[in-house]
Amino acid sequence: MRLAAIGFDADDTLWHNEPIFAMTEQQFEELLSAYCPVEEIRRRLFEIETRNLHHFGYGVKGFVLSMIETAIELTGGHITGAEIQHLIDWGRQMLESPIELLPHVETVLHSLAVHYPLLLITKGDLLDQESKIARSGLADLFTHIEIVVEKTPQVYARILARHHIPPEQFLMVGNSLRSDVLPVRTIGGLAVHIPYRITWPHEVVSAEGITYFTLDHIGELPAFVRRLERGEVEDL
Amino acid sequence: MRLAAIGFDADDTLWHNEPIFAMTEQQFEELLSAYCPVEEIRRRLFEIETRNLHHFGYGVKGFVLSMIETAIELTGGHITGAEIQHLIDWGRQMLESPIELLPHVETVLHSLAVHYPLLLITKGDLLDQESKIARSGLADLFTHIEIVVEKTPQVYARILARHHIPPEQFLMVGNSLRSDVLPVRTIGGLAVHIPYRITWPHEVVSAEGITYFTLDHIGELPAFVRRLERGEVEDL
Repeated sequence: MRLAAIGFDADDTLWHNEPIFAMTEQQFEELLSAYCPVEEIRRRLFEIETRNLHHFGYGVKGFVLSMIETAIELTGGHITGAEIQHLIDWGRQMLESPIELLPHVETVLHSLAVHYPLLLITKGDLLDQESKIARSGLADLFTHIEIVVEKTPQVYARILARHHIPPEQFLMVGNSLRSDVLPVRTIGGLAVHIPYRITWPHEVVSAEGITYFTLDHIGELPAFVRRLERGEVEDL
Repeated sequence: MRLAAIGFDADDTLWHNEPIFAMTEQQFEELLSAYCPVEEIRRRLFEIETRNLHHFGYGVKGFVLSMIETAIELTGGHITGAEIQHLIDWGRQMLESPIELLPHVETVLHSLAVHYPLLLITKGDLLDQESKIARSGLADLFTHIEIVVEKTPQVYARILARHHIPPEQFLMVGNSLRSDVLPVRTIGGLAVHIPYRITWPHEVVSAEGITYFTLDHIGELPAFVRRLERGEVEDL
C-alpha cells in the first residue's frame, strides 16, 4: 500500500488550541460566579454556542458572541458594559495568543514532507486560521492548505478530488473523531486518531463500529506510516 | 486578445450587500441617539471597525462586535444587556437576509459561462460567504470559488497561478476600486469597475494614475467583453 498524501488537522493536532478556550471559559465562569453556579454557566454557554454554530461558525468571534449572550441571559440583563468589554478584550487576546506547537510536530512534518504531499485541513474562521498557520512557521511544509466551514465526508471528497488523491491512498491525522476520523472513513480513506488531553464536548461522538488507528502522540507517526506501507499494520 | 478567465467579486457586484449593513447601522444610530449625535456615532463606529479589521476581519460577526464596543464606549458603559442583545439579534438577522441578485446578473453569467471559465473571488467570513453563494443559486456557474481574507496583489497572483491563468489574460469585475481593480492592475491583469450606489468608506481609495474600465451596470459586460476581444476597446 502506497499513500498518495497525508492530511493533518491543525488545532490540538499540530498546536495547542483548546486550552486557550478553556482558560477564557474559566475567566468567564469567575466573572459570572456572583450570579450563577459554575455548572449552570458551563451548561448554558455550551448550549448557546451549539445553537450559534449554525449562524456564527467555529472560532473566536462566534465564541465571544456566545459568551456575551450567555452573560446577558444569566445575569438577567444586569451585566455591565464594562464587563462585556472584558469579554471582547479576551477574544482579542485569544486571537493574539502565541502558537505553541505540540512535541515532535516539527521533526515529524519535516521527515514526512520528504516522501509525501502533506495537506493541512482545518475548520474554522478564515482570518484566524490563516493567521495561526502563518505564525506556526509550518506553512511551507504543506502542499495544500484547506480551510473549511465544516469537515463533512462531502468536503473531504471534494478536496481529494480537486488534488487527484484516491481516498483509499489518503491518510488523515487528527485529534477529533467527529471531524478528522469518521468523515474520512466514510469516503474510504484511512484515519489516525491522536487524542488531545481536552476535547470540546461538541467534537465528542460515538465511533462504534468505525475502525481507525490510534497513536499516543504524533511522534509515533513516521514509524506507523512505514509499517503501514510495508503491510505490517493489520487491515482496518 | 483572448481572455483566459473572468473573475467576479460577489457582494455589491452580483448581489446587494451594503444596504444590509447600512440599514443595521441606521438602527444602531437610532438606538444610541439618546446618548450621542448621529455623526459622532457614525465616525466612532467606523474607527472601531477599522481598528478591529486586523483582529476580526470582514463580515457580520466582526461588525457586531464593533457595534457592541462602540455602544459601550459612547454610552460610558450605560448600555443595557437587553440593548446589546438587540445588536447580536440584528447580526443574526443580517446573516439570514435573503440574497437579492442585481439586475442582469443571471443572464450575464449564463452567457459568459459558455465561453470562459468564471471565477468568484470574494473576501470576508468563510461561513457567511459560502452560505450567500449557496443561497444565490449561482455557484454552479463558476469554475472556481475563492474566499479570501483580503484581496491583495499577492492573493490574486496566487489564485491565478494555481489555476494557470496568465494575468494579462485575466479580467476582474467588481464594485471596489480597492479590492477588485487596483490589486489586479498591479499584477498586470485587466479590470472593469462597476460602481455600486453605496460604497463602504473603507473601500474608497484614490485610483489616480491607474487605468481601468468602467461600466454602468453588469448588463453591459458581455458586449464589452466582445469588443475587448475584437480589439475595439482602447488599450489601457
